[in-house]
Amino acid sequence: MLKVVYADSEAVSAADRGLAYGDGLFETIRMCGHQAVLRRHHLNRLVADAGRLGIDVEYAELENQLTLAARRLQPGEASGSWVLKMILTRGSGGRGYRPPPSSAPTLIVSASPLPAIPGPEGVVARFASFPLTVNPRLAGIKTLNRLEQVMASREFTGEEWELIMADPSGLPVEGTRTNLMVHTDDAWITPAADAVAVAGVMRQYAMECLQAAGETIVERSLPARIDLLPGLRGLYLLNSVFGIVSVRLLDSVSLPVEGTLATICDPLKTLE
Amino acid sequence: MLKVVYADSEAVSAADRGLAYGDGLFETIRMCGHQAVLRRHHLNRLVADAGRLGIDVEYAELENQLTLAARRLQPGEASGSWVLKMILTRGSGGRGYRPPPSSAPTLIVSASPLPAIPGPEGVVARFASFPLTVNPRLAGIKTLNRLEQVMASREFTGEEWELIMADPSGLPVEGTRTNLMVHTDDAWITPAADAVAVAGVMRQYAMECLQAAGETIVERSLPARIDLLPGLRGLYLLNSVFGIVSVRLLDSVSLPVEGTLATICDPLKTLE
Repeated sequence: MLKVVYADSEAVSAADRGLAYGDGLFETIRMCGHQAVLRRHHLNRLVADAGRLGIDVEYAELENQLTLAARRLQPGEASGSWVLKMILTRGSGGRGYRPPPSSAPTLIVSASPLPAIPGPEGVVARFASFPLTVNPRLAGIKTLNRLEQVMASREFTGEEWELIMADPSGLPVEGTRTNLMVHTDDAWITPAADAVAVAGVMRQYAMECLQAAGETIVERSLPARIDLLPGLRGLYLLNSVFGIVSVRLLDSVSLPVEGTLATICDPLKTLE
Repeated sequence: MLKVVYADSEAVSAADRGLAYGDGLFETIRMCGHQAVLRRHHLNRLVADAGRLGIDVEYAELENQLTLAARRLQPGEASGSWVLKMILTRGSGGRGYRPPPSSAPTLIVSASPLPAIPGPEGVVARFASFPLTVNPRLAGIKTLNRLEQVMASREFTGEEWELIMADPSGLPVEGTRTNLMVHTDDAWITPAADAVAVAGVMRQYAMECLQAAGETIVERSLPARIDLLPGLRGLYLLNSVFGIVSVRLLDSVSLPVEGTLATICDPLKTLE
């Protein structure tokens, strides 16, 4: 059984393993009124990744709580945009790091306004100096262990919309809050799901759209100099709240901005 | 200013960044009555590592809170042993991962009984299959991002006292809750502070004791087969609550148990 906490009116047990060890996951969901954009993608990922961590939770239970939370937290207008965050932790108990044989997971829900969405002209990005390491057994999981992203985010100067993190060898992995998708004359290239820290649902949805459109997708690592990729048509940042964002300037180098991906893939269509 | 939360009677804001991102640190301190074993080591590390994360806190403030917590939480007997845990988070606020320019850190204190301390005959250890990755910029810091240790701890079968974690290439790094120290005919060997996930205060104190005793210490990586190290005299697990623990069986292979380190180094002496 899930213990549900509404962050606007309730607090969390100081013994919760989410706080003690980051023993949990989260989803940040774009909402239109009481409808969740990419609802099934978010819930599928949350259930699958909870399974990888051994946190016992069911799709139907989470879907039910999402519906209840959407109704309760939805701000004023019936179709207005906002953001719903769901944190799922293993709950309390256990001996130190060792989890209890079974526990009641905690679900913490909160609402926040939709942030400003960048326009089609594209954004400025830069590489963070703080490196990103990926444990192969935790790759792709949006866990609560996000101190690397926090530390990289301290490098924001106000001039960039996103900071891109590289692995210790200098290869780009992902943005602090976005996945990378590169379009070249030959293919769409994105780092593999087992090589990224967070495999976002927008990344997943974009790959499904590209596949349905008959495009060629290659999951492989990106070179340190994305701007020098032969036949580069565009670099996209993917995030389920912000959608598809083109990069027009990367480390002060201009990149082509084509906007193709947004015409192939519109997450707001998942509401239909 | 520190916001102090007593875990036995108070809850934590659901917006705390310690919960959201593991944006914080912790110390687990062995207590004798109201006295903290390795008090200065714990406080020094906490202040230094908070500085590395950009969490603004002062030694005197933490020492004061430790004194207050020791008085308030100390169980029955005046000189009885127990464990005091201090979690220090960056507090609330910020835009997503990006921390606020300044924040009031949260200090969460809790007490627990002293666990059973292994005897000089040594313990059984085994390698965990779950790998440990170390971000070079977070190396050594006892942050709240401890999901790797949690996942490794799920492999405990009840037969081992500790599980040792290796990096993705298979080299031993540390135990789930202990640092490694190997004694050979030539030297004392321990992985370097910039190569471990947590650089424990017991590791630090043991190195100080060995240095004071004129022993040779080498900070370098350990081989996958510690049992095959030439001139092996013993493998020790170091933890500030458990102290110095000899390994007598590692992955079913017997290791020599000498007990020398405990004669050179007694953390309870730091109470004098």
